[in-house]
Amino acid sequence: MKAEILSIGTELLMGELTDTNGSWIATQLPPLGIQLQGISIVGDDLPALAEAFSRGLQRSDFIFTTGGLGPTQDDLTREAVAAALGETPTVQREVVENLERYFAGRGMTMPAHNIKQAHLIPSAQFVRNRNGTAPGWWVESDGKVIVCMPGPPGEMQPIWHEEVAPRLRELVEDEVTITRNIKTLGMSEAAIDEEISEFFGHENPYLGIYSKADGIHLRIIARAGDEQVAREMITPVEAAITERLGAYIWGYDSDTPEQAAGQALSEFGLTLATMESCSGGFLANSVTDIPDSARYYKGGVIAVNSEMLLASGVPPLVLEKYGLVSPETAMAMAHAARNGMAADYGVAINGVIGPAPIEDQPVGQVYVAIAGRKETRELQFRTPPRRIVIKRRVANTALTELRKLVVLENGD
Amino acid sequence: MKAEILSIGTELLMGELTDTNGSWIATQLPPLGIQLQGISIVGDDLPALAEAFSRGLQRSDFIFTTGGLGPTQDDLTREAVAAALGETPTVQREVVENLERYFAGRGMTMPAHNIKQAHLIPSAQFVRNRNGTAPGWWVESDGKVIVCMPGPPGEMQPIWHEEVAPRLRELVEDEVTITRNIKTLGMSEAAIDEEISEFFGHENPYLGIYSKADGIHLRIIARAGDEQVAREMITPVEAAITERLGAYIWGYDSDTPEQAAGQALSEFGLTLATMESCSGGFLANSVTDIPDSARYYKGGVIAVNSEMLLASGVPPLVLEKYGLVSPETAMAMAHAARNGMAADYGVAINGVIGPAPIEDQPVGQVYVAIAGRKETRELQFRTPPRRIVIKRRVANTALTELRKLVVLENGD
Repeated sequence: MKAEILSIGTELLMGELTDTNGSWIATQLPPLGIQLQGISIVGDDLPALAEAFSRGLQRSDFIFTTGGLGPTQDDLTREAVAAALGETPTVQREVVENLERYFAGRGMTMPAHNIKQAHLIPSAQFVRNRNGTAPGWWVESDGKVIVCMPGPPGEMQPIWHEEVAPRLRELVEDEVTITRNIKTLGMSEAAIDEEISEFFGHENPYLGIYSKADGIHLRIIARAGDEQVAREMITPVEAAITERLGAYIWGYDSDTPEQAAGQALSEFGLTLATMESCSGGFLANSVTDIPDSARYYKGGVIAVNSEMLLASGVPPLVLEKYGLVSPETAMAMAHAARNGMAADYGVAINGVIGPAPIEDQPVGQVYVAIAGRKETRELQFRTPPRRIVIKRRVANTALTELRKLVVLENGD
Repeated sequence: MKAEILSIGTELLMGELTDTNGSWIATQLPPLGIQLQGISIVGDDLPALAEAFSRGLQRSDFIFTTGGLGPTQDDLTREAVAAALGETPTVQREVVENLERYFAGRGMTMPAHNIKQAHLIPSAQFVRNRNGTAPGWWVESDGKVIVCMPGPPGEMQPIWHEEVAPRLRELVEDEVTITRNIKTLGMSEAAIDEEISEFFGHENPYLGIYSKADGIHLRIIARAGDEQVAREMITPVEAAITERLGAYIWGYDSDTPEQAAGQALSEFGLTLATMESCSGGFLANSVTDIPDSARYYKGGVIAVNSEMLLASGVPPLVLEKYGLVSPETAMAMAHAARNGMAADYGVAINGVIGPAPIEDQPVGQVYVAIAGRKETRELQFRTPPRRIVIKRRVANTALTELRKLVVLENGD
């Protein structure tokens, strides 16, 4: 079954907003066995939209759209579907009443133009939207399906999970695609390639390798008549990867370094403190992106100069002897964080973020140190000299290394 | 003149990667007077790509592509252009020699498959790429122009600025579009609308209003025969907006809150220290995203519990009397940051990030406090209860408020 996605809105063509709905829906389709042929971004222009629908109906089984369901004159998705199918919209009384209740519940009367959101054509049914005034449309015509959803991700994603995906699952029973994402850090792409080379180059299960900010990801994709069979095709490949790369694997599927590290700390009831120089708060901000982080994160310090390092407990002798940027200073920071904030683990980052070199060390040179319950860890490497790349790489490395040490020191 | 963009790569259809090149190029076109009709994301599939080019040539004057210029079998942009135009690629000897030199300079011999990157068709010229092995293509045929650029933004954007934009400027002399973005915070969209209502609803200059994470943006777009005239059309609208909303304007065009605050501090040679609870490092991380921040940022503390607040200089009596989350505690944090790190300005954030309420205050309730050289500032508000929204809104508000106070206390 083939699909395409239309992301609708002139603001997407002005560069005001980057479309993220397209790539989000793209991630949802492989497990349903639906093959995505393309994503198109189209402005709020009726002829262009109607043409996009007509062309899509010729070459795809499904068209998924986001945007253009609001109440204003610029919102033309409904009109374009009607035009492409040659149908005429009518007003649905019960939806008008729902809308009136929605506004009344907020102490307002419904603006007249919201009546557009109660329009329907004969081939369409409404799709419930719990988080906004714009209901979606589910349209079936000549064996093709068009699903229109609102643009805000906070409305679209719940609609997808609750209303759209279950109906799609019923429709596309012939093939299931299962993916398994295995995330590694510390081994090069070439070395991984060599280690598991016999699994590459097959159609099904397919093995892909991707270089990301948090390491090298391996993605196994299996297609089969049912989920069970697809999972059984993945098992031996995953087992071989685990056996050969085990020490470098830090997470699976949608895991992030901060989530994997946090989960390890939570599991053993342990706590964390951080001290960073060059990463400037990126590490702390990643740690606190996890909702449960208050349970294990005791706090952090951003120390970008020697006064702040001294005030945070780094011994003056260390700074004098090893300078601002060195593995020794990073380790002293890790101990100072651990002791000063009474945490089980202290993680420290220092390095050269730029624009200028520090103490003759180039931009991108970074040091990670971890003071653990029994052991310590030290890492140093050089990243490409772009500010955001340095921050992201060094923080991700610190978090994956932390997870490894927590599991090593506390696991069985 | 009409254009469309093709973003090429199967990884964009698997949701592995979100296309940002399309929206970036979209922002570059209005000042050139080129009207963008659509952005399409197409996989690495020769028939689909060739069809996309053929269709594009029918309806657009320009096609801009990114991706698919690498050396592998999956890189099919060149082949698709050749197919759409019915031309046959030949190998360009001097480009092969350039490639060989590029690899030799890295101590490697050129892999055989890189020879693809030296292919050219009669209608195409190479476009120089200083940052990678893949040269771009500039293709002219039947009055239409196709520009093919590599996918990595670090290669594509320099190519655009250095090679593509100057040639486009020569081609499209008939109309220029100038935009001016004015960024406000603290006034609602409805209130702004009322204040400057007479400027909305015109075609040229057009005024748009957009709600963003860092406030309400106003965008003036003027089209004219030359830049001078277009700028003169913007001037009176901008002057009226400045007069009526002046106190709420914190930046222009591509300004960010952290950049605007940093610029104000730099201008007066002043320094900053931060202390945050609920924003968990988002504020520090934003501040340090600015390359020059080391000149004015003295450091920061992430204090998520009372021990850390006490250790960072918040008086025990304040915590006892006002609790973890309150305007008084936020102000004590701001003073502790300013005094403890010997900075001119101390900025503090506290609030409830979730998942649970704290001290009976709901998730999303936040407090910002600033201790300045002479004055202090206090703000409190409630954001939607999503973790990343809370962090971003409260940090942006703190930074725009900081900028305002710095300018007020030190400007003339």
